[in-house]
Amino acid sequence: VGDDCALLRPDAGLDLAVTTDMLVEGRHFLPDAEPRALGHKALAVNLSDLAAMGATPRWVTLALALPAIDAPWLEAFSAGLFALAARYNVDLVGGDTTRGAVRTISITAIGEVPPGLALERAGARPGDDVWVSGELGGAALGLVRPEIAEAAKRLHLPEPRVELGERLRRLAHAAIDVSDGLAGDLAHILERSNVGASVEYARIPKCAAFAKLGDPELEKNCVLSGGDDYELVFTAPRAHRPELESLARELGLALTRIGEIHGGTPQLAVLDAQGKPLAHRGGFDHFART
Amino acid sequence: VGDDCALLRPDAGLDLAVTTDMLVEGRHFLPDAEPRALGHKALAVNLSDLAAMGATPRWVTLALALPAIDAPWLEAFSAGLFALAARYNVDLVGGDTTRGAVRTISITAIGEVPPGLALERAGARPGDDVWVSGELGGAALGLVRPEIAEAAKRLHLPEPRVELGERLRRLAHAAIDVSDGLAGDLAHILERSNVGASVEYARIPKCAAFAKLGDPELEKNCVLSGGDDYELVFTAPRAHRPELESLARELGLALTRIGEIHGGTPQLAVLDAQGKPLAHRGGFDHFART
Repeated sequence: VGDDCALLRPDAGLDLAVTTDMLVEGRHFLPDAEPRALGHKALAVNLSDLAAMGATPRWVTLALALPAIDAPWLEAFSAGLFALAARYNVDLVGGDTTRGAVRTISITAIGEVPPGLALERAGARPGDDVWVSGELGGAALGLVRPEIAEAAKRLHLPEPRVELGERLRRLAHAAIDVSDGLAGDLAHILERSNVGASVEYARIPKCAAFAKLGDPELEKNCVLSGGDDYELVFTAPRAHRPELESLARELGLALTRIGEIHGGTPQLAVLDAQGKPLAHRGGFDHFART
Repeated sequence: VGDDCALLRPDAGLDLAVTTDMLVEGRHFLPDAEPRALGHKALAVNLSDLAAMGATPRWVTLALALPAIDAPWLEAFSAGLFALAARYNVDLVGGDTTRGAVRTISITAIGEVPPGLALERAGARPGDDVWVSGELGGAALGLVRPEIAEAAKRLHLPEPRVELGERLRRLAHAAIDVSDGLAGDLAHILERSNVGASVEYARIPKCAAFAKLGDPELEKNCVLSGGDDYELVFTAPRAHRPELESLARELGLALTRIGEIHGGTPQLAVLDAQGKPLAHRGGFDHFART
């Protein structure tokens, strides 16, 4: 503080994982977004990227453009960001606040990971199980049905799966976080690993609110193509099933096997209860266009 | 590339210096700013912050908001940024491009510096000489007299003093880059070090264009209170004069002694040719208000 730069001392012998993200008002959040939740989410999406690499978050920089000095907004935003940062011992090491007509938030997060143990998208192998943490579809449901509190919370206060990412370093072959939707994000693993996958729709853990809605098409769109859940999708060898099941109990976080990786073209088949391929809209981009 | 984060391997045993900066169209640059120069300057201001700490630049992340995909603009911007990055072996390790109504550029730069050798603002001691690199006032002159090519170049294509910063690690006690004007930036050193300073106006190296203009008031405002020169101001013990003079020759960069640090209140006196204090407007913020 007070110098041109912050000085950090990384742990000797670790690699650094770095991710950066920009959120713009009107595109990534609404002008009336609750600032405390926004501060949480702006950091959460970056911590989620680190988790998907198996990295332990350490430091973060924040650049903000604001139309005017709005002290209550800034205090609430900072409180949300710092509360999440404190939970994971993440230090804010640099900041720049400037004036700009459109509220804009840019965060760079830096984490540490032992050399060779980072989880990459290219590591999936035929025979791997496909796993997902938590439940899917809630954040997308929160967009269209904001009155459902459980879904709105998933949208506005996502939990980055930091501990899970760290523990998967020696258990998973490949991982990604669900930011654009299960179908689209899993497709990134398949393309980078040059493998195919089949997933059973019935086995995908879904936000509990869907059970009461009785709208299977909405459910399917949210679960397969909805973004912003920030759960981890990962592949792991069958031999690690017992360890992953005990890890789920230890973390108090559901880890569910939803399918498997196979050789062949990098395509995802989502199968219905009869084992037939289910039509779906792909990742978030496609959903947004309909 | 292709994963959630970039992986870096820092050199063992070095500290990291991190700085972040956000530039907003209409505030930090004009809508018709030449994009190649803008790409250069956006990176240069961050490399200058690293240089002021004595850090060697290594990695940079870039987040961009753009109103529309404008391929020629983006290509020229990137060309300017990458050309400067290549000169200093800086790798772009993360990026996020998103849509936003106002062009916004956020850069985080990471450098390395041996532990204990970072140049901080708090290190100035009574008896130190005050030095400045290059010439001052050119960038501010370029703002008001854009037709003077030499001055416009100083404004739009500043040179971060990377090698100088590295070489000052063992020679200087304190350093800062001139981003807000000599008077304001040197005042930061004085406040943090709790020392005073006197500077002789006649000894300050000035952009050569002032000699032809014959406007001493404009010159004084630009030289003392103009920002954006990105030269380094630093303090060093008298015993290092010979080394600093030979460093200037080696780097082909003027290093000029302009005054000295003394004990007492953290105030800056700028003295005229008769040794009398010269009234001045302080740093850039004050200048902007007049």
